[in-house]
Amino acid sequence: MYRTHNCGSLNIKNQGEQVTLCGWVQKIRNKGFMIWIDLRDQYGITQIVFDKERTSLKLFEKVREINREYVLKIKGTVIKRISKNSEIKTGDIEILAEEFEVLNISQTPPFTLEEKTDGGEELRMKYRYLDIRRSPIKKNLLLRSKVTQIIREFLSENGFIDIETPYLIKSTPEGARDFIVPSRVNSGKFYALPQSPQTFKQLLMIGGIDKYYQIVKCFRDEDLRADRQPEFTQIDCEMSFVTQENVINQFEKLLKTLLFKIKGIRIEKFPRLTYKESIEKYGNDKPDLRFGMELNNLNYLLKGNGFKIFDSNKINLGIFVPQGSSFTRKEIDNLTSWVKAPQIGANGLIWIKFNLDGSIKSSIDKFFNSTQLIKIFKKHNGKKGDLLLIISGDEHSSRIQMSSLRMELASRLKLRDPNKFAPLWITDFPLLEEDKENKCFNSVHHPFTSPKSEQINLLDSDPTKITANAYDLILNGNEIGGGSIRIHDSDLQEKILKLLGFSKKEAISQFGFLIEALKYGAPPHGGIALGLDRLVAILGGQEIIRDFIAFPKNNSGKDIMIDSPSEIDKEQLNDLNISID
Amino acid sequence: MYRTHNCGSLNIKNQGEQVTLCGWVQKIRNKGFMIWIDLRDQYGITQIVFDKERTSLKLFEKVREINREYVLKIKGTVIKRISKNSEIKTGDIEILAEEFEVLNISQTPPFTLEEKTDGGEELRMKYRYLDIRRSPIKKNLLLRSKVTQIIREFLSENGFIDIETPYLIKSTPEGARDFIVPSRVNSGKFYALPQSPQTFKQLLMIGGIDKYYQIVKCFRDEDLRADRQPEFTQIDCEMSFVTQENVINQFEKLLKTLLFKIKGIRIEKFPRLTYKESIEKYGNDKPDLRFGMELNNLNYLLKGNGFKIFDSNKINLGIFVPQGSSFTRKEIDNLTSWVKAPQIGANGLIWIKFNLDGSIKSSIDKFFNSTQLIKIFKKHNGKKGDLLLIISGDEHSSRIQMSSLRMELASRLKLRDPNKFAPLWITDFPLLEEDKENKCFNSVHHPFTSPKSEQINLLDSDPTKITANAYDLILNGNEIGGGSIRIHDSDLQEKILKLLGFSKKEAISQFGFLIEALKYGAPPHGGIALGLDRLVAILGGQEIIRDFIAFPKNNSGKDIMIDSPSEIDKEQLNDLNISID
Repeated sequence: MYRTHNCGSLNIKNQGEQVTLCGWVQKIRNKGFMIWIDLRDQYGITQIVFDKERTSLKLFEKVREINREYVLKIKGTVIKRISKNSEIKTGDIEILAEEFEVLNISQTPPFTLEEKTDGGEELRMKYRYLDIRRSPIKKNLLLRSKVTQIIREFLSENGFIDIETPYLIKSTPEGARDFIVPSRVNSGKFYALPQSPQTFKQLLMIGGIDKYYQIVKCFRDEDLRADRQPEFTQIDCEMSFVTQENVINQFEKLLKTLLFKIKGIRIEKFPRLTYKESIEKYGNDKPDLRFGMELNNLNYLLKGNGFKIFDSNKINLGIFVPQGSSFTRKEIDNLTSWVKAPQIGANGLIWIKFNLDGSIKSSIDKFFNSTQLIKIFKKHNGKKGDLLLIISGDEHSSRIQMSSLRMELASRLKLRDPNKFAPLWITDFPLLEEDKENKCFNSVHHPFTSPKSEQINLLDSDPTKITANAYDLILNGNEIGGGSIRIHDSDLQEKILKLLGFSKKEAISQFGFLIEALKYGAPPHGGIALGLDRLVAILGGQEIIRDFIAFPKNNSGKDIMIDSPSEIDKEQLNDLNISID
Repeated sequence: MYRTHNCGSLNIKNQGEQVTLCGWVQKIRNKGFMIWIDLRDQYGITQIVFDKERTSLKLFEKVREINREYVLKIKGTVIKRISKNSEIKTGDIEILAEEFEVLNISQTPPFTLEEKTDGGEELRMKYRYLDIRRSPIKKNLLLRSKVTQIIREFLSENGFIDIETPYLIKSTPEGARDFIVPSRVNSGKFYALPQSPQTFKQLLMIGGIDKYYQIVKCFRDEDLRADRQPEFTQIDCEMSFVTQENVINQFEKLLKTLLFKIKGIRIEKFPRLTYKESIEKYGNDKPDLRFGMELNNLNYLLKGNGFKIFDSNKINLGIFVPQGSSFTRKEIDNLTSWVKAPQIGANGLIWIKFNLDGSIKSSIDKFFNSTQLIKIFKKHNGKKGDLLLIISGDEHSSRIQMSSLRMELASRLKLRDPNKFAPLWITDFPLLEEDKENKCFNSVHHPFTSPKSEQINLLDSDPTKITANAYDLILNGNEIGGGSIRIHDSDLQEKILKLLGFSKKEAISQFGFLIEALKYGAPPHGGIALGLDRLVAILGGQEIIRDFIAFPKNNSGKDIMIDSPSEIDKEQLNDLNISID
């Protein structure tokens, strides 16, 4: 037996007990006549003390040879600590060492293993196992485990059956790229890794499983962007005999449970916005509702006053920045440059300050008088002290620009509070969008999403007008989940695939099994998939998912710790009958 | 809302309630004046009744158009059933239909969806979603979900943290073949799918995680044998600061919990056998202890009596078959042919019957008299009515032959009771076995398994004599788990890799990250991995794992439902810079 207790479990009640602990040397303080060691394990830190008076000379000499990150087994007595440390659970006690054993030595770590480290990103990735010893990363992994445990308990209590779907499936060349896996036994043929278990979960519903869930790895061979991982984890769910309302209610409950159990936060009912409302109010379909600053179409007030910018542009969008009248000229100039930078691409930024003293100052003083401008504030409940920022342009890009500006302002004003949680549902997405290049349509959600039944007749006349039975779950400006009621009618599924540009032959070769399955009594069904990596990161009050994954890949899809991907033996390629071009 | 209840939930307490049910038509009985439908969903079957007296004519006509596997929504009143069906939960009631809607029609299924089906293996695999509707397969999937839930609860309560390790890792050309995944972003390089998360779980221990678990898919590109799957599921666990005894106790508790919660069976303490004992007593290292018939080395009784077969062969192994004296001559001849068949390969089978009347009859009556033969029975507590079967030959193959014969006899005598559970531990495996061809050694377990510390000095002199800190968990003759205490010393790990034939360069290129990690304060650690597919099958009283996997592959590694593996677009291969030879 290695230990009687762990390093986070002892307190004043254990005073006088003889204990054995194992752990890593976090810190050593040597005052000559006394040596303290902070011994660390997953559960906490316990202070060990050696002193010249109470510790044998031999032991005292031996302890001088110890270094940071050595692994020790220490036997001693729990004693009351004189200078207590209220920041740690074991802060009332320390262990007076009587014996110890070095279980393993350690080289000096290449970066400090403290709350804040001096290690750069690359170094920390290469020595990920050392980075995991640091409490911020360790806490993230423990949080992730707790989150999945709560999710599993919830789904299980609600009758969901955990079913594994296959990883070696079939490539479908639409949407993102698949990772493929050459088959040795079936030479010249390939498996593909799943981008999601979508078709399999639908087959389970057709198979009479009532409620399915799985926490499952999915794979997408995309050109990597910052904070995207080629493998990611999905909480995948599907239910039979349900309406959109049933699915939304079920998973609203799940997120409420998580927010309560993890954060102690109770949220009554999640707001809902249609896709159209969200675009109009926030310029995007995943609005951050932790703060206001909605987009206002000010055309009705601004147009027709003879000011060319307002009159000639399709739309004049404004947002009211609370207490923004205190922005300096320099700050406003900086924001103006920010919106004019190529990645945002606005033509400019018009500003109007409604000062606390009731006066007005604006960049359009030459064209509008104070009365006109105050009227705008009054109409929109703008207050003294607010700043109105206006972007003019065409409708589509102005909304996107305004959405970016809104988020940027929120960051600068520290309104994106990581301890605040603002979930909502977006519904009524369009089913299809036109693909002019290929003269067909693309699914906004995916090819198995059902149209609103009362709009099915539009499939022949005006497909882009159709609304889908699709819904997204948004949390703090991130899409953390999306789902839909699926098509359960074989003919309708074939029709949609045709609109998506699949020839009959292609449709059969890729989705023949699903079209066939729909002919054998498919029940009405629908579901949702939540992104676990992002969800955990947000619950952890952060936005970088990499820090919530035990062994993530870097932005080039590489695991630099194990050096993967890597070259492969010629022999192995020969066995597979493939070669590198 | 589709339904008020499911098809397994109504009973006599609901009498008089108006309910709405959804489900599939399992059966229709039409007596002209009355029509009954068995409506089925995941939860059960409820009988629906239509009759000419109480049902509207229009409805009665409409119901005649319904066929098997149609999906219906039915509204009606719960009434007491006249002829009760005690075999189903809802057998006391039926629903007098008032309205119904066909939610989906169904073609006639290609095989009957009953407890016993007329569908062949191939057909059932092609229409797996229909096979899942059958109660035996559905029950298996529900059992699997329940088993994983119990395992997760247990491990979580015992402090194990659920951590996901990566699926896109690095190929290591030893042991079984890896499946590889070409990287598009890193052209000419490949990921590999994990055969197990072994090195990652060790890195987690080095990272200070105290107890890890994961239920995870693993992949092996082996030449397929019956009932092997290229992807399989492992319950993967690792613990820090543990001895072999700690790991064994922890997972003995887990299996006890499972056997109790799933089967209501309490088992006190699992027996343990060393590898050597197991080979001697049962001829293999995964003995089925549901029955006796141990192997006995009868050399000391049989040799030196002038009978050439016994004298000239290295070993004479006997098993006593309880009540075997009733075997007919034909049965014994059949067994003799069976052991002489090439796949067993014994030279012959010698038999001695100790009849119930105390007389002796044997195939060696010419060489031994009754007194001599009865002595053998007496010495080994053989009873009147028993049959002694003897195989003579060299030690290694005779034990294997005898082990096969023992299992065959158990099958014929119906001693392999699927409702009986006999777990045990096998310990003290050899660490290494000689690989004469490559002039090196192979790991019996895997390269990270630690030798018994007191035998480390044998590494230089006699490596095959070393015993490993390795252990297997056996259930009903199947290895359901295996594990070991790992090497936590970097130098020792390098030394073992050298014995396994790795050059310094190879070792660094493949396991460099682990050897390096061991230098930064690796704690003593060990763990185990259990095969979930097999475990669930045994708990389900069966041996074919395919029936416990939602979407299994066939014996050629194919998923014939989705037609995978399949050919791939040229364009996709071009993107990956690979081509088919």
